[in-house]
This record gives sequence, structure tokens and C-alpha cells, in this order.
Amino acid sequence: MKILVTGCAGFIGSNLVHSLLKQGYKVHGIDNFSTGSAKNLQPFINHPHFKCFTIDLLNLQHCKDAMLDEPNIVFHLAANADIRHGLEHPTKDIEQYIIATSNVLEAMRVNDVKRIVFTSTGSVYGDNAPTPTPENAPFPIQTSLYATSKIAAEGLISSYCTGFGFSAVVFRLVSVLGKGYTHGHVIDFYRQLRRHPEYLRVLGDGRQCKSYMDVEDCIQGILLAIAVSYAGRFEIFNLGTDETFTVRQSVDTITSALMLDPDIDYLGGDCGWAGDNTHIQLDCTAIRTEGWAPRFSIKEGIFRTLNYLQQVESTPRE
Amino acid sequence: MKILVTGCAGFIGSNLVHSLLKQGYKVHGIDNFSTGSAKNLQPFINHPHFKCFTIDLLNLQHCKDAMLDEPNIVFHLAANADIRHGLEHPTKDIEQYIIATSNVLEAMRVNDVKRIVFTSTGSVYGDNAPTPTPENAPFPIQTSLYATSKIAAEGLISSYCTGFGFSAVVFRLVSVLGKGYTHGHVIDFYRQLRRHPEYLRVLGDGRQCKSYMDVEDCIQGILLAIAVSYAGRFEIFNLGTDETFTVRQSVDTITSALMLDPDIDYLGGDCGWAGDNTHIQLDCTAIRTEGWAPRFSIKEGIFRTLNYLQQVESTPRE
Repeated sequence: MKILVTGCAGFIGSNLVHSLLKQGYKVHGIDNFSTGSAKNLQPFINHPHFKCFTIDLLNLQHCKDAMLDEPNIVFHLAANADIRHGLEHPTKDIEQYIIATSNVLEAMRVNDVKRIVFTSTGSVYGDNAPTPTPENAPFPIQTSLYATSKIAAEGLISSYCTGFGFSAVVFRLVSVLGKGYTHGHVIDFYRQLRRHPEYLRVLGDGRQCKSYMDVEDCIQGILLAIAVSYAGRFEIFNLGTDETFTVRQSVDTITSALMLDPDIDYLGGDCGWAGDNTHIQLDCTAIRTEGWAPRFSIKEGIFRTLNYLQQVESTPRE
Repeated sequence: MKILVTGCAGFIGSNLVHSLLKQGYKVHGIDNFSTGSAKNLQPFINHPHFKCFTIDLLNLQHCKDAMLDEPNIVFHLAANADIRHGLEHPTKDIEQYIIATSNVLEAMRVNDVKRIVFTSTGSVYGDNAPTPTPENAPFPIQTSLYATSKIAAEGLISSYCTGFGFSAVVFRLVSVLGKGYTHGHVIDFYRQLRRHPEYLRVLGDGRQCKSYMDVEDCIQGILLAIAVSYAGRFEIFNLGTDETFTVRQSVDTITSALMLDPDIDYLGGDCGWAGDNTHIQLDCTAIRTEGWAPRFSIKEGIFRTLNYLQQVESTPRE
């Protein structure tokens, strides 16, 4: 089976490619290396079943060319990882998600590729969703361009399922931690504490409460799509741990793991950045029914992430 | 008060401009005249408080220029009216709604214009919504690029409310009939019966069941936004009659009004076109609580539409 992965050099994408290759699939990867990193490809860059194309998904012709050999499934993971700064460049999310996803779908259509797996976000449920949030929560009101763009991409995909007979699996993810982690509060806090171990500045009031999962658990969940994508025309699964962690719990866990006792300066306000969803906890009953369960707790995920960050730092740069 | 109307030469847009001018507002209109028609502007083209700009919303600079005089409210009605053919040009809906709406929002932001009214669609509730559908129906699965683009535009608008302090009112409309009507099954059937009064071809099985409203009622609802847009940061109202009509009821009403007795050929299938929502009926309790109620029944709306079409035909072309 041939699989195409967009965003193959990103955090989740590179972990996914590695797992797919280990399971014996032939994998073609696409990345424009804007936020993805060639370093992430190193563990498998010379694997005989892997080929990487440096392509920007905003170029439709390049997308079409990349699918000429008709992969059996496209895992569409390419994303603008710079979520919290969406308001500083309001059209970037739109381009990165909506136009890029439209191009991926069009490239699939003209090449008769009909199975797609997409990584969306728990943020699509907006504010005021009941928690834990099921897939059929009340109609959301979007608060960020990031989540708006993800929900638009989901809609494009489901429209192609209706209109062109595609089958799709969409995963709405909680925040992902672990090996390859490049952005988010754990790395922010880690870097701050490396620079000044005696104090830590925290956006918001520390009470934002979210769910997290380790990227290894995330990949195991996403891989289920290979088995279930024929089962339904269009399937949506929440994917996350059942736990939540407040930012304050994260601070405690991180400072304790690093054996530091900094002064904590909460900068105030009820969310870290405008449009941030302050409480994300997903009801993951559906994906658990498919046989998936997370192996790592949030605390373990944070420990593993810190270990990874320390390993990266201790590796001599080329 | 200065008001900007995008899509001012369209069916709903031109009716809205006419009402706004009658109520004493200064109105600037924008249209690219791709589906809008200069004929629709005739009743008020020389009104001293009206000015029309021929601008394509896909051009951001032109959007910004059009808002230099800082209107108090933007009514964003511009749309690709060619809904059912979305799959034939999959990127058109994306451009017309998502990019155009993004440009309108950016033009507003740089010119410090912060109130927007947007006409969305009852189709955003997707298939399988409970009917009558309330604004907080379960999380929808989109079946058409049209509805996907509308839901994306809604999300962009609510994100600008969160991120930039905009206030917005979104109306999710049922199908609109009446004076200025240019597309939809009533005109299709009318034209067919003018060409061949003895038979009528109908897409689908005739059991699709939808709600309709007369454009005059629609405009009265939309105008409420001027009063309520300060009440809430982001308000959504369904807007439609409480009734529904099957296509078969429409066929009966139209043939009876035209005093014809054609053979009816139902082409089969449960929907008129791929992605069509076969059952749309909105719960309009919220807008009714604001004091709005439709004056015309669906049957009256169809009669008025047929009268309009006959008037247009009997008017000598210039």
C-alpha cells in the first residue's frame, strides 16, 4: 500500500511517517519546510520505501504532480503550526488550511485518489462546549482563525465525500506532546527556565484547562484510519486522553521534573491569547470503541517531552 | 448612518439597498456584476444617498479603498449564487465566500469599521439535523462546498469578533423568493413551462422538503440587525417561515397559478443535486422574539415570484 503524507517533516507528520515505514508501507512525503524540519526526517531519510517531495501545497499543479502515482491513502497533516499568532497575519491560516486542503482534494480528484485522513483540532468545538465534548456537540461558535480554517477544511473534505465519493477519517486532536515537539507551553516554559531558572512568566491566569496526549499515542490513533476508513463514508473521531491539566499543574510538573523552584508570574486574563479555548477536554468514547487507548498520562507526556528537549539540546549541532 | 452593502446588485442585496434608502440611510454598494445585475439597481440608481462601486471583493486593495469613508455597518451579502453547480468548479465557492469575506474583514479592520451583518444559509446545518433546526443544533457535517464556505465565513467573522472586537449579526436564511428572484426551482419550472406547457421535468423525486420566504420578509428580518448588533458581540439568527413546502407542493402551486396541467416527469433520486440538503426547516424562535414575523406564506411567496417573473417578461428589453 502506498501512502502520501503531507507535512511529513512536521512534528506529528514525521512521527507518522516513521511508524508507517516500520509497518511496511511505501511512503511519499510532502513538505514545504516552512515549519517542518529536515532534522525530523533524519531517522528514515534513506529508507528505501520513503521519498520526500519539497512542494508547497498552495501550488495546485505541484500537488497534482505529487499524486501521479496514485497513493492509496493521503494523510493530510500539513499545517500552519503558528496558532496563537493567527491574528497577526489573518490570511495565513486561510491559505495554509483552506486553500492547501482544497488543492490536496483537487489533486486527489484528478488522480482518482479517494481516501483521505485529516488531522483537525479539538478547538473546532469553540467556547462553551460541554466537556468532555462529544463529536456531535452543539453547533460551535469559532473564536480563532485557526479553528475556523480547520472546520472549513473538514467541510471541504466531507463535501468531497458527498460530491465525489471520497471516504475520509477526521481526527480532532487535543494538544500533542512528545518526541519532535516544537511549539506550545511546555517548550516555552522549558526555554524560559533554561534562560532564567529563578522565574517563569505565564500567559493567562494559569487556570486554562486542557487535555494533552503523547505523540506516540496520537500516531497509534491516526493509524486506525487505515482500517476504519472503508467502514464509513466520513468518520470523525476525537483523539485525546480523558485527563485534563491546568497550566498551573503543568508548571508544577515541569518545575518539579527540572528540580527548580522559580517565582511564577501569571500575566493574568482568562486565556493565553485572543481566541484561545480555555477548556478543552474531548469525549473519546468513539475512538476507544475502535480499540484505541492512550498509553501515556499527561504527566508522562510532559516528562517525555522534557527528556526529548534535553536530548535535542545535548546533541551537537551540525 | 452610512451603510455599505456588498452584493448590492444581487437579488437580496438590491432589495436591501432599496429599503435602507427608503429608511433614510446613506448607502454605498459594492458589486462585481458577475451574478448581480445593473437592472436591479434601476429603482434607486440616481438616489442622492446611493453610490455604487464596481469592485471585485477578491481584490483586497479595492475593498480597503471602498471603506475609506468608514461606514457604520457593513452588510456583507455578496455571494456566488450558483449553488448547485459547486462541484463543477470546486474552488469558486472558496474564493467567492472565504477569500472575499476575509478581504471584507481585513478592509474593515484597517479602516476601523467594526459592525458587520452577514447572510449565511440554513444549509450550514448539514444533513440529519433535527427539524425545525435551532441555532445550536448538533455539530453539522457539511455536504456542499457552498455550505462549507458559508460556515467558514461565519467562523472568520466570529474570530474577528473575538480577536478584534467586531460585533456581528449572522442570518441563516431559508431559500428566498420574490421580487428580483433569479435562480432556483420556481424560475426553472416557470421557464420550462413557458417553453413547453405540456410537460415539466423535475430533479429528484419531488419529496425534498424545504422552507422558503419572501424577500420582503427577509429584508425586514435583516434590518433588525441595525438595532440588535450592539446587543451581543456575535449573534446568530435563523430567518425563515415556519412552514415547509415539498417540491411536489411547489409544482402544484406553480401549475395551478399558471393554469396549466403538464405531465410531471420526476427524474428520481432523493435530492436535486449532490450535496443538496433535502429537508430544511429552521426554528426561528430567536428572531421572532426580537419582534420579526413573516408576512407572507410560502404559497403567497410563490405567487408573488410568478407575478414578478411575468412582469419582467412583459417589460420591453432595452
